[in-house]
Amino acid sequence: MTTRQTCLALDAADPLAFARERFSLPEGVIYLDGNSLGALPKSAVERVRGAVEREWGEDLIASWNRHDWIGMPQRVGGRVARLVGAEAGEVVAADSVSVNLFKLAAAAVRAQPPERRAVVIERGDFPTDLYILQGLAALAPDIELRAVEPGGMAEALDETTAMVLLSHVHYRSGAVRDMAATNALIREAGALSLWDLSHSCGVLDVALNRDGADLAAGCGYKYLNGGPGAPAFVFVAERHQAALQNPLSGWMGHARPFDFIDDYAPAPSVARWLCGTPPVLSMTALDAALDAFEGVEMAAVRAKAGALGDLFIDRVEARCGRHGLTLASPRNAAERGGQVSFACENGWAVMQNLIARGVVGDFRRPDVIRFGFAPLYVRYADVWDAVEILADILDSESWRDERYQTAAAVT
Amino acid sequence: MTTRQTCLALDAADPLAFARERFSLPEGVIYLDGNSLGALPKSAVERVRGAVEREWGEDLIASWNRHDWIGMPQRVGGRVARLVGAEAGEVVAADSVSVNLFKLAAAAVRAQPPERRAVVIERGDFPTDLYILQGLAALAPDIELRAVEPGGMAEALDETTAMVLLSHVHYRSGAVRDMAATNALIREAGALSLWDLSHSCGVLDVALNRDGADLAAGCGYKYLNGGPGAPAFVFVAERHQAALQNPLSGWMGHARPFDFIDDYAPAPSVARWLCGTPPVLSMTALDAALDAFEGVEMAAVRAKAGALGDLFIDRVEARCGRHGLTLASPRNAAERGGQVSFACENGWAVMQNLIARGVVGDFRRPDVIRFGFAPLYVRYADVWDAVEILADILDSESWRDERYQTAAAVT
Repeated sequence: MTTRQTCLALDAADPLAFARERFSLPEGVIYLDGNSLGALPKSAVERVRGAVEREWGEDLIASWNRHDWIGMPQRVGGRVARLVGAEAGEVVAADSVSVNLFKLAAAAVRAQPPERRAVVIERGDFPTDLYILQGLAALAPDIELRAVEPGGMAEALDETTAMVLLSHVHYRSGAVRDMAATNALIREAGALSLWDLSHSCGVLDVALNRDGADLAAGCGYKYLNGGPGAPAFVFVAERHQAALQNPLSGWMGHARPFDFIDDYAPAPSVARWLCGTPPVLSMTALDAALDAFEGVEMAAVRAKAGALGDLFIDRVEARCGRHGLTLASPRNAAERGGQVSFACENGWAVMQNLIARGVVGDFRRPDVIRFGFAPLYVRYADVWDAVEILADILDSESWRDERYQTAAAVT
Repeated sequence: MTTRQTCLALDAADPLAFARERFSLPEGVIYLDGNSLGALPKSAVERVRGAVEREWGEDLIASWNRHDWIGMPQRVGGRVARLVGAEAGEVVAADSVSVNLFKLAAAAVRAQPPERRAVVIERGDFPTDLYILQGLAALAPDIELRAVEPGGMAEALDETTAMVLLSHVHYRSGAVRDMAATNALIREAGALSLWDLSHSCGVLDVALNRDGADLAAGCGYKYLNGGPGAPAFVFVAERHQAALQNPLSGWMGHARPFDFIDDYAPAPSVARWLCGTPPVLSMTALDAALDAFEGVEMAAVRAKAGALGDLFIDRVEARCGRHGLTLASPRNAAERGGQVSFACENGWAVMQNLIARGVVGDFRRPDVIRFGFAPLYVRYADVWDAVEILADILDSESWRDERYQTAAAVT
């Protein structure tokens, strides 16, 4: 029988407990939304201040060399690489996930022979992934968008398939897709895989190279804690780097950007996936945030994410079961990312009530309440306490209060 | 006869003198590179700190609503609009100049009838503008790239032309292109104009609507002082907004991004030009930087930029003429943007020596030394002093010192 004492003991024995001190967390808040916006790493506070006041303010244009702003996208990419099972030279920080998916999807199609022009995606995946492929197919009408029903990816593969875009962890359910098995299928069909790691990087032990991934993009502001709208990253497996061309061929991806010549020549490295000038202040925050992963093994992160999620599921079912909450995520931790979702009638109001009580998760239509367990700063006792508060809200029906009924612009 | 006293008198009478106090400038530096990276506005220091510590650190995910992060791209765009002669609803802050040029060029072509598929640009324009069109034409082979010699734009227009991409101010020479006359030519040919405002916005009295521009993108980190790699902006004239489709159709440009539906539907506003999640910290700096333009009329900014450049040219020719410096910018201020370039033998070493003496300009190959005069913080006396130092360097040949001979990564 688990008790709050058990949770405190688990926290005391937690090999990742040291990492919580690396974050600045607000008093009185149990933050279970790191899957949407990661918490503030303490190192980012001073680093960003220094980038503004000293680097920009004092050293001005000289900072491109003196503080190596110019090398930051590759340096940050190299640090992300370890967290996703890639080599440093395979990852670069750049732009947003959406922009990067466009680059990679377009490049993958154009690297295939002309009879392969279909791009496959499953409906119900994260919307921007679908939207980006829709935009690509509208721009280049020879590209056929094959958006199939969830689970239909394998059947959609054939000799005309160029590329498959997949979420590693589903944004809504938290379900993990088996990367190795999926890549084997895609490879066998002669297509290239493009993974959206937004909900897996920084919380799972992603192993892009071990699992045979071709291409990937991932988010800097969720489990990597890089700050709101932090730059995203691009992964291109070493074996594809020479052949793939970035269609957003901006000057920062040029082999010699400061020669100012008229003709584009891609950098002979992963830097070719850059486009324009990177947002240095936002990228500085991401760079600093990666300090929080120093000395952290991703296998331990994944293990703790699973254990926190298991605890949450057990406690919700024990304490809130009679209110009709239904698990909307895989029960088996091996099949689940860092978040756990429950279908919950009146979920919007329940979540607003939770937030007002200091438990921050989020709501996804029509009826899903979603909780993310970022292992670097969420404790077992936090999970216990969050479920006690949820149970109290449901038992007391306090969520019926009118102030919890209004929808906000962003959810 | 101009003297340093005359310069001090001009500064005392300068209607923009008040603006210098809005910037944090390093001691002992005459900063003449605001055309490459604008100086730090004091307001940005506190605003970015607040965005990190309070908004991200304390309010976390709630900041999307509480601090209106979600509305920031349109709010910032609306503030930029006044500076470029547009309506608030025609401008949005997003991504980089390079990415935005791709969006707009692609959209312009696809909005034209199928017989118009040529995109025109002049060689020698800012390289990323050429590179982006090269990437677009490689991705969509029905698009014909017509890169003509400098000055050849008008002759390249015909009934197959879809779009023309032009720099308003040339990055190297500072030459201004006549926007009204150029737009008239382009319109008459049935094509659409796309302006790169990177070297004109924030220093000239750009009048996009008065001058009949169709589309534009501009830089946030030069004369707008938004910080290194600040987000850029997109302008789409109201009359084109319904018809043009963003090919980078990411979720932030969706009509209802938080409905999480499978099919893209563009926002019915300029917000459709967004793609992924914006870099909030970098955009906060840009927003704060625009405070420095409060109460500033762009006609006064342009007038002062011209006067500073005229003074610089006069003084360089008077003091350094015998060293063979040749003006590489238009002599007439009406035809010149905010920067003045001189061809200068051994220009690299001369510029390094200048920087070591506290006069910061930059160098462009093969032999151009370039100086930018940002009217919000550069004084007439600064121009006088900078030329005295330049003359001393040339007279004494101190630039021959070996420490000024080494090339840096970024120039």
